[in-house]
Amino acid sequence: MTFVEKLSRAAEKNKSWLCVGLDPDTSRIPQHLGSGSDAILKFNKAVIESTADLVCAYKPNSAFYESLGADGMRVLSETIKAIPDHIPVIMDFKRGDIGNTAAMYARSAFEYYGADAVTVNPYLGFDSLEPFLKYRDKGIFILCLTSNQSSADIQKQIILIDEIPSLENISPQAKAKTIAEFFKCSSLTVYTHIARLAMQWNDNGNAGLVVGATSPAELEKIRSLVGNDMPILIPGVGAQGGDLQNAVKSGSNTEGNLAIVNVSRGIIYSGGGESFKEDIRQNAKSYKEAIYDFSIQKRKIRNME
Amino acid sequence: MTFVEKLSRAAEKNKSWLCVGLDPDTSRIPQHLGSGSDAILKFNKAVIESTADLVCAYKPNSAFYESLGADGMRVLSETIKAIPDHIPVIMDFKRGDIGNTAAMYARSAFEYYGADAVTVNPYLGFDSLEPFLKYRDKGIFILCLTSNQSSADIQKQIILIDEIPSLENISPQAKAKTIAEFFKCSSLTVYTHIARLAMQWNDNGNAGLVVGATSPAELEKIRSLVGNDMPILIPGVGAQGGDLQNAVKSGSNTEGNLAIVNVSRGIIYSGGGESFKEDIRQNAKSYKEAIYDFSIQKRKIRNME
Repeated sequence: MTFVEKLSRAAEKNKSWLCVGLDPDTSRIPQHLGSGSDAILKFNKAVIESTADLVCAYKPNSAFYESLGADGMRVLSETIKAIPDHIPVIMDFKRGDIGNTAAMYARSAFEYYGADAVTVNPYLGFDSLEPFLKYRDKGIFILCLTSNQSSADIQKQIILIDEIPSLENISPQAKAKTIAEFFKCSSLTVYTHIARLAMQWNDNGNAGLVVGATSPAELEKIRSLVGNDMPILIPGVGAQGGDLQNAVKSGSNTEGNLAIVNVSRGIIYSGGGESFKEDIRQNAKSYKEAIYDFSIQKRKIRNME
Repeated sequence: MTFVEKLSRAAEKNKSWLCVGLDPDTSRIPQHLGSGSDAILKFNKAVIESTADLVCAYKPNSAFYESLGADGMRVLSETIKAIPDHIPVIMDFKRGDIGNTAAMYARSAFEYYGADAVTVNPYLGFDSLEPFLKYRDKGIFILCLTSNQSSADIQKQIILIDEIPSLENISPQAKAKTIAEFFKCSSLTVYTHIARLAMQWNDNGNAGLVVGATSPAELEKIRSLVGNDMPILIPGVGAQGGDLQNAVKSGSNTEGNLAIVNVSRGIIYSGGGESFKEDIRQNAKSYKEAIYDFSIQKRKIRNME
């Protein structure tokens, strides 16, 4: 079964496009669970038990486990084992390195931890992502436009995709026309360039994109560019301030599907006391229902057209 | 002591700008060491014992340890502990993520593993690197132009750094002139843009760049752009085919310093039999001496000018 099939089945079964981010910060988990890595494992298991019928996927963020060293990686492994088999696991580790190293990262995520999908960074280009894309049944989410403020530093730069035309031996009028045409046809943002490359690199039909909820207009353009079949992972709702309705409507395909809305801090730190499991469940349920309602609305609009 | 001070002292003591990459592949270490993670630790300790007086730094590549899960991370930790205190450790993990996650990666590298420096990926922009740069005494090597073939996919794209000028209400002759000027002043490659940003982001004087030996002409331009004080980490010599002399001459500053030439596979897999330690030492010594000779030549040329 491919990642998209597994994802779609989980989404259908739970009527949910909510992904819960498992980013356990030792300083923010309920005190009565204790401290250290065992407390984190208890916390993660509680989050999973409280939400397993409300999500389409879980997304553990590798950094939170790595900050605890070898013991943290054991907790990551145990956490992934505690996720029911039918719910896909997206390992959020944003790796990008030359081929022989990328192959080691892919082996780590898919063979050691048993993740169903990963996030990867495209800065090194195709040969750095190929070792991941070769795993046909896994999902590869390529960073496109991220949810942070500084995403503009590189991702929103304008690039020239064609050679600058020669301006020798042509009349001034022709020059101006050449240039105007050139700008119209030949400039793109870096993130649009990445979305186009992702489509070129998608021979196995297993690529996806990461696009933050904080840029809904850009998200909508990217969805219309990549069409109906590519999943888009959308962080940035909740703690980072992205609007939920815009995220779903802009990011989903014409059927209202394949926009995976991730919420981490906004759900897992819902409650600090003994009743934290119930608080988390309640909060996840609200997100799940809101997201699903927006996706149904999108499907209806499509069907009326 | 800052990272650059520690690096410079180690380089001076050992008369070396060679960095040995600790990328242990279980399938390539000498068979008589056994298998599994304990064999890797034995191998790494043997490499360190054989080369500790020949290097300016060691660079463990996190992926090779991560591919073995939690146990691999224990080996990484033990490996770093086995490196003599006066030799800096560059943890090659190429992370890049939003601020709160980047802070966890920084904590992992600097506080848990005790690395002196890291490699990071700039695709997410300044706020994703700030949590690393805040560690004033650590070195932060920002990926600029990597040594792999596909680096051209994004890093060698041409970006427009200024707004496209308005072409309304000016004569055709003025238009052509405006455009020609515009292209001359306002287009940059992505990697040059990154090198400029690295200088802007370098308030604590602890940023460095990663530039592959496979692009010596570009390496030379980047060195002249960033000046004398920024260290450049240069992978791509050896297995990846970059020329050693060009790497040192193009990457070092006017004093012949601060070009850290990394060799991984080209040194650590020098021998497979019982005498592998001697083979590794011999090979590392040849690299070290060649690199140092080229750096002395560069200094002499400078002094003659």
